[in-house]
Amino acid sequence: MRIARLAGRPVLLTPEGAVDVPPSLGADLFARWDDLRRWSAAATGARPYDESELEPPVPVPRQIFAVALNYRPHTAEAGYEEPEVPLVFTKFATCLTGPYTTVTLPPGRVDWELELVAVIGREAHQVPEEKGWDPVVALTVGQDLSERISQLAGRPAQFSLGKSYPGFGPVGPALVSLDEIDDPDDLELTCELNGETVQHDRTANMIFPIPRLVSHLSQFCTLLPGDLIFTGTPAGVGNRRVPQRFLTPEDELVSRIGGVGEMRHRFWRPRT
Amino acid sequence: MRIARLAGRPVLLTPEGAVDVPPSLGADLFARWDDLRRWSAAATGARPYDESELEPPVPVPRQIFAVALNYRPHTAEAGYEEPEVPLVFTKFATCLTGPYTTVTLPPGRVDWELELVAVIGREAHQVPEEKGWDPVVALTVGQDLSERISQLAGRPAQFSLGKSYPGFGPVGPALVSLDEIDDPDDLELTCELNGETVQHDRTANMIFPIPRLVSHLSQFCTLLPGDLIFTGTPAGVGNRRVPQRFLTPEDELVSRIGGVGEMRHRFWRPRT
Repeated sequence: MRIARLAGRPVLLTPEGAVDVPPSLGADLFARWDDLRRWSAAATGARPYDESELEPPVPVPRQIFAVALNYRPHTAEAGYEEPEVPLVFTKFATCLTGPYTTVTLPPGRVDWELELVAVIGREAHQVPEEKGWDPVVALTVGQDLSERISQLAGRPAQFSLGKSYPGFGPVGPALVSLDEIDDPDDLELTCELNGETVQHDRTANMIFPIPRLVSHLSQFCTLLPGDLIFTGTPAGVGNRRVPQRFLTPEDELVSRIGGVGEMRHRFWRPRT
Repeated sequence: MRIARLAGRPVLLTPEGAVDVPPSLGADLFARWDDLRRWSAAATGARPYDESELEPPVPVPRQIFAVALNYRPHTAEAGYEEPEVPLVFTKFATCLTGPYTTVTLPPGRVDWELELVAVIGREAHQVPEEKGWDPVVALTVGQDLSERISQLAGRPAQFSLGKSYPGFGPVGPALVSLDEIDDPDDLELTCELNGETVQHDRTANMIFPIPRLVSHLSQFCTLLPGDLIFTGTPAGVGNRRVPQRFLTPEDELVSRIGGVGEMRHRFWRPRT
């Protein structure tokens, strides 16, 4: 089951198009998740849709967790020691945008970070690692777009603000229920800039896999339905390339995770 | 006007007690803020209430901004250089608690941080500093309770998780509208532990005052009604005392800001 969002309402995406989710199920998507899956198996009435109108599939998460330095080659390229515990910041909620939008580039150096995003479907607290998948009901694709100057300014650097400009949190195209995914612990990540592969890895190489992240976060916070976990990015960010490479208005960024989906973003910079 | 929350609904606090806010005004507190003020001027029907039942006055903020190192003596005691830009992290929303609750102490070293909290009432983006007070409609008292071991673990340290255990975000007792406050740029902060003053300063000594913080945050994020800004803590935290002092189940913590209000918290640690 793939649940996306169009014109403020949830839709089921099928090969034939979009099917409106009945309001009784859509009003509280996560509470009715199992009913939604039963309904989706026989849903009819697909209509064509314009993918550029897709919205973030979770429009109002209560909490957005983001993990830094969760792949060894990215940790090395960023110049840090391998972390002993997950490093967690936030992307402030107003940065979310849809999977096929044009993102405004603020002043500075804007970089890409393809990430798998885990979507919480059930309230959870102090989850043991062996049950770490339990509260997760879906996966989706995310970009942790980052303006490097503001991200790294300050001692100690606080990552969140430079990663939270409007449009800096693309997610989608859909919430993909776990039963759609062959092996959710090992997914291929591919980020392409103008057709060139700039990031390529597998989620099996995470230092802290999703069950460990869910367990760790839930030792501190109560996880709520709709919460998002950005699970960290592999190597290949522009800030660490030689020469450095940052996003410009000419670029097209494709963010693809095998079995989960693909997003495509363009960029725009206002004249000053 | 002082707007608090009881049993999931907003109430006006008066010297005589609590007055229920009419549902038509309470359903969207910030959109109806001016109407609420007019109503509050003539509201009658106050009833007694139990202050221990007061809830966080904003139960579901979309974004919680928290500022590190915003008073020079605290910056010095923490061993950092004076920041050139505000350092911003988050407290994840499930940490919020009311103004007179008992907070569960997790394992570790739990410290106090009294802070003035600015409450956003109007959507705002790219606010110039000279208009930085405009989106702020109220002030309230906050504690940025912090477990120091997890807060400072990791390189670079990410502050948010160790400051987000359940109950680590006391706020209240009420949203105090700015017209109630003589000089919102200069308020006396007093934090008492078992009757001993452990923090005492004035908000006029902030490195980045509220208009600067609002302007800075809004250069990145769109601020939304109900967003909270924890504005940083003065010197005197337990982690930097000699000898160090952390919260224990016997302690009573009083958090007072002149003209804004007072909170009182007790602590509890489960047997393990």
